[in-house]
This record gives sequence, structure tokens and C-alpha cells, in this order.
Amino acid sequence: MTRYKAIISYDGSQFSGFQRQTNARTIQEEIEKTLSKLSNGQVVTIQGAGRTDAGVHAYGQVIHFDLKKRDVEKLRFALDTQSPDDIDFVSLEEVSDQFHARYCKHLKTYEFLVDVGRPKNPMMRHYATHYPFPLKLEPMEEAIKYLIGTHDFTGFTASGTTIENKVRTLLRADITFDTDRNFIIFTFTGNGFLYKQVRNMVGTLLKIGNGRMPVEQVKLILKEKNRQLAGPTLAGNGLYLKEIIYED
Amino acid sequence: MTRYKAIISYDGSQFSGFQRQTNARTIQEEIEKTLSKLSNGQVVTIQGAGRTDAGVHAYGQVIHFDLKKRDVEKLRFALDTQSPDDIDFVSLEEVSDQFHARYCKHLKTYEFLVDVGRPKNPMMRHYATHYPFPLKLEPMEEAIKYLIGTHDFTGFTASGTTIENKVRTLLRADITFDTDRNFIIFTFTGNGFLYKQVRNMVGTLLKIGNGRMPVEQVKLILKEKNRQLAGPTLAGNGLYLKEIIYED
Repeated sequence: MTRYKAIISYDGSQFSGFQRQTNARTIQEEIEKTLSKLSNGQVVTIQGAGRTDAGVHAYGQVIHFDLKKRDVEKLRFALDTQSPDDIDFVSLEEVSDQFHARYCKHLKTYEFLVDVGRPKNPMMRHYATHYPFPLKLEPMEEAIKYLIGTHDFTGFTASGTTIENKVRTLLRADITFDTDRNFIIFTFTGNGFLYKQVRNMVGTLLKIGNGRMPVEQVKLILKEKNRQLAGPTLAGNGLYLKEIIYED
Repeated sequence: MTRYKAIISYDGSQFSGFQRQTNARTIQEEIEKTLSKLSNGQVVTIQGAGRTDAGVHAYGQVIHFDLKKRDVEKLRFALDTQSPDDIDFVSLEEVSDQFHARYCKHLKTYEFLVDVGRPKNPMMRHYATHYPFPLKLEPMEEAIKYLIGTHDFTGFTASGTTIENKVRTLLRADITFDTDRNFIIFTFTGNGFLYKQVRNMVGTLLKIGNGRMPVEQVKLILKEKNRQLAGPTLAGNGLYLKEIIYED
């Protein structure tokens, strides 16, 4: 068997998330069905680097799976064309058996798109969070800097998460404003993200930008490790798993 | 009864077009259902300025309908919130009984989006035509100029169209390149468009940009009025009814 690593992109809007579940359409299930079709019905299991939630999109999700050796570009093409329209196989390569999409050390980059345009754009309803309220960039730009570094992000994860260690490192956290499209783009790069962390961080930053929380709230949430102090969890439709880079 | 003019936007990807038809989801039917709900079940018929095809989107479609007089902003809000997610009511105003969305003289602007980025973007599959082949802007920019003016556009419409007079005037026809997103945007403003005209014009321009037709082909198609000489009809997913401006 040969281990293959694939970079895939997908439109999350018609999926109940990455991970397989009963009675719901998932990215994992669709890809495993395609792989099985290409392997005479054999069961093939994939491992994904990140378990994106319902509605969350990806440009650079990484998966791995084991398959009988074959021509890699032909296999990529077959996977790309035989997968549903909302999943693309961007690239495929053979890797060592030691490679594991989830457990090998890596940096993930997420983007969160907020559409501040008016009127709301029906073409973007699955691809950004529409925020038609007053928003100041400066306080958000100040607040987002406090997130950079190594912190216990308990206050920004869903309460009741079972993972013990909630210390993560954010190497990058910034905001860009796309004036052509009236989008605010939040970018985060880190060695790992807790459940709903990005959506809670952006929910908090929007409250700060809207003047309903002080800039220092971010520091307070990190210090107190209290989810109650943070802003709301935004919908998954604005979230994109942009890129994953592995240490070699 | 009061006549109302509305500007609506919609994501055409889940519709079989604007115009009502049996056993297919259409924009007209959805809006008429909502209007009927808001009028105690009375039948209300709408008239649209343009009959966009399956998959075609709109930022500025105009419709009119007659209804018992009521508060205009409350009505707009009710229509916006009670219509399906993929239709928005951008604005609403009372107009004279003489106003007719389709028959009053107007200029329409259409945009056609071509995504020339690689890899293909699954988030854009309903919102642009993906064209991953070599494309030169200069010949298309030269060719598109020949379309401006008053011409018989028979060669650019679907063969078998029943409309007699196929002379239309294009006031604007140009190309912009969005380098951030790798999009080519074709913009056309005119006093009327024939069935599939924009999709055929852009299909021809892409052939010219790809080097498979000479720049002069546009002149030849206009002169010969022969659909066979033109490029393919592109899919509706890249087409947007952008704006309609009425003469007063």
C-alpha cells in the first residue's frame, strides 16, 4: 500500500461538516465513496488534518489515505472529476508511511470573511457573515494583537470541550479590509485551534469593533478563561481553512 | 390599487430562471407566493424587466406589481424577510400606473464573470465560468469594441428566436481584469438584449482571446448574421443582471 497526501478544497455550504456521521452528508463520506469506487469497492478510510464544521469551507484541507500504488496524476484527476462538484482535488502526492495529516506537526491558517456591504448580497450568503452594523477597524486591529502568542484559549472555545490542554500558539492574527468588495478578512495562523475558537474570536472582535466591548476584553477573556466573557459564536459560513503547512 | 416598483437581487443557482413554469422553481413564482401570503391569499402577478435564464444571477432586476396601498418600507421589509434566502428586496417605491418594468424604455447592464484562476475554486462554481486555458486580453479588448453601437445581433442570439427585430444598441462593452481574484469581467450596457446574446458574445470573445478565432470574427458575425460563425453559448452561472436604468 502507498500513502497519499492530498490537498483538497470544498464548498462547505451543502455539507454537515468534514467528519463522517449517520444520516448527514459529509466531506469524509463523499471522498471515501469516491475512493472506494476507484478501488473495486474496497473500504478506504481517510484522515483529515482539520475537522471543519457544517458550512465551513476549505481551500487547503489536507487528507491522507492508503491505496494500492498507481499513477499519481491519473489518480488525482480521477478523484477530482469523480468527486461531487463541491469538492476539488487540488494536488496529490505520495508520502512516507510516517505521514499523518492530523498528527504530524503543522501550522494551520484560517480566514474568516465578514461582508459589511449593503445591501446584503444573496450570492455571498453561504460564503461570508453579513454584518450590516457600524464597525470600527482600529479597536479590532488593536484587540487582535493580544491574541498573538501562546495562550490558554479556554475562554474562546465551546464550553464543555473535552480536550484537556487548551494552550495554543497563534503566530499570526490580523485584519485586512477589501474595499472593492466591502469585506473584512480576519486571518489566523497557529499550531492548532480549539473547537469553535476562530468563530468565537471573530465574534468577540466584532463586538469590540461595534463598540459594545472594550479592546481590553480580549486580555480579560484570556486571563479569566471564561467563555461567558467572549462574544457570540459566528456561523460557519464565513470560515475558510486556507492552508496547512507541515514541518518536515 | 397602488403600483410598486422593486429592485431585487437573487442568487440564480437554485432557480430554473425568472419566468414562472410548471414543476420548476422560479423567481417569479417565489415572489408571487410571498406577495399572495402578504395579501390574504389574493393572487398577485409580477412583471419583470428581464427574463433571466436558469442559473443567471441579478443584483438589479426590476419588477412591478399592483397591491392595496400600504407603508412602503414595512412592505419592503416583509417581502425581504419572507422571501426565500436567495432573493433579496433591495428597494421598493410607489410608482405611477404608467410604469411597466418591461415596456418602459430602459438601459440594462449585464456583467459576465470568467474565473481564470487555478486551481478552480469550488466556492465560485455557481458564480463564474471557469476558464483555465490560455487567454490574451488584448485581442478581446480590440474585438469587444466592434460590438459597441447599433447592430443587428442575429449572429449572437439563439437560432430559432421568434423576435423579428434583432437590432439593438450597445452603449458600453468592455473588459476589466480583477488581478486579486483572477477574474475577467465583461460589462455590457444596452437598450435591450436578445436571448442568450451576452453568453454568445462572451463565448466568442473567449475564443478570440484563446487564439482560435481572429479579432475580425466579431465584424463578420455582425455582417453575416450567422450564429454558426460565433463561439459557444456559455453557461448562465457567470451572468449577472447588474442594473436597469429607466428613462423618465
